[in-house]
Amino acid sequence: MRIARFSIDGNVAFGVVEGDATSGDGLVLDIIKGHPFAEFERSGKRVPLDKVRLLPPVLPNKVVAIGRNYAEHAAEMGGGVPEVPVAFFKPSTSVIGPGDPIVYPSFSREVHHEAELAVVIGRMCSQVPRERVADVILGYTCANDVTARDVQRAESQWARAKGFDSSCPLGPWVVTDVDPADLAVMCTVNGEQRQLGRTGQMVRSVEDLVVHITEAMTLLPGDVILTGTPAGVGPINVGDEVAVTIEGIGTLTNKVIKRG
Amino acid sequence: MRIARFSIDGNVAFGVVEGDATSGDGLVLDIIKGHPFAEFERSGKRVPLDKVRLLPPVLPNKVVAIGRNYAEHAAEMGGGVPEVPVAFFKPSTSVIGPGDPIVYPSFSREVHHEAELAVVIGRMCSQVPRERVADVILGYTCANDVTARDVQRAESQWARAKGFDSSCPLGPWVVTDVDPADLAVMCTVNGEQRQLGRTGQMVRSVEDLVVHITEAMTLLPGDVILTGTPAGVGPINVGDEVAVTIEGIGTLTNKVIKRG
Repeated sequence: MRIARFSIDGNVAFGVVEGDATSGDGLVLDIIKGHPFAEFERSGKRVPLDKVRLLPPVLPNKVVAIGRNYAEHAAEMGGGVPEVPVAFFKPSTSVIGPGDPIVYPSFSREVHHEAELAVVIGRMCSQVPRERVADVILGYTCANDVTARDVQRAESQWARAKGFDSSCPLGPWVVTDVDPADLAVMCTVNGEQRQLGRTGQMVRSVEDLVVHITEAMTLLPGDVILTGTPAGVGPINVGDEVAVTIEGIGTLTNKVIKRG
Repeated sequence: MRIARFSIDGNVAFGVVEGDATSGDGLVLDIIKGHPFAEFERSGKRVPLDKVRLLPPVLPNKVVAIGRNYAEHAAEMGGGVPEVPVAFFKPSTSVIGPGDPIVYPSFSREVHHEAELAVVIGRMCSQVPRERVADVILGYTCANDVTARDVQRAESQWARAKGFDSSCPLGPWVVTDVDPADLAVMCTVNGEQRQLGRTGQMVRSVEDLVVHITEAMTLLPGDVILTGTPAGVGPINVGDEVAVTIEGIGTLTNKVIKRG
């Protein structure tokens, strides 16, 4: 099931996405009564997807991101895979939705795309044992861990380099029934392929990461884990259109604009 | 003015703290109508402070913390003061209030106290110019940037080392009319002094930090900036009582307990 969050007539709602974009019939949203973090019913009230504005599919309280989780990317960054996962936060103020602009930050001259599989947490959880990981996950979406690479090199902790406003595009929706074990993860800039990897290359699996993170901290419904980026990261500039596509999920597209 | 947040009869409220604890008369809360992030009125309904449970004085969406902002502490950690401030996040799930327990994390064997002045943001802001910094600050409180020092050494980013549940005690209240320029910051463990510094020793001032952080990201009402810790950090263990006292603000006390 694909669950989108959107605004319609000034209200925010969740809806189940129906239809197949490739058939040309267009996608439709069946509006959900309530929210998707508990049992829910569909209202049967349908709106065409192209008549609404999609929002970030969840509003995370926090995003926990993982660095260097693909060996080839770790190598392109210099150095190897760390002995323990590199975990850092992106704040809620960094989150934008599909179609929202990535605003080029004033304090950087080298901003990179990083296409990633995002795990959306479905229920409050801590100290999650491996065999319960599936129970705490609502689903998966696409993410771009947008990074001010020059600032990341200059500052030992990455709050500014990876936490600036609009540095965490998420979307287009959450897919609840995809197996994350081996999905193609692609990034294009202006239609040209820049990254192509598979989640099967991840050093630590989704299960590993949920166990590792929740050993330390409570995750809340709507919190998001970014699972690291495959090789091929590179610059994006004002005017570029960057798209993250994950097999079985969809495409998250954002344009880079100048700060107004 | 001192503004506390507390629970009474199952509700959460803000109140203005009246009275002088040293006089022996006891402190009283005058309950606020609404919240302190806009113009507010006092209700005139008063409750004794010792009859309520104090909560964290704000519920931050994010806590932005600064490392190595006192030269003597930078030296005790090995190395010096960084060229640009070290900024990292502590998540909302790490925040606890005065009197709440610090739960010793299962994945560490070396947990340290770090007494710090906390800046509480009063309004949504970004790109704050130096001359407007005072306008975005609601006030100041005490913080303990509790740190799993062994994990901090082992993991290049500090999400787990400094972001675990209960690693961010805040309180006891927000003081709106104190000058943060040169306040004594003290930490005691079981009544014994461990840290004593002055905010005047900070490498970057509160103004510097607000400008630096908001260059990158939007701060929201209730967000908190931790301004770094003076020298003297050291271990706390199960059973210890750790207290952070800041001149003109008050004392934040928390006990360390074993995970249940």
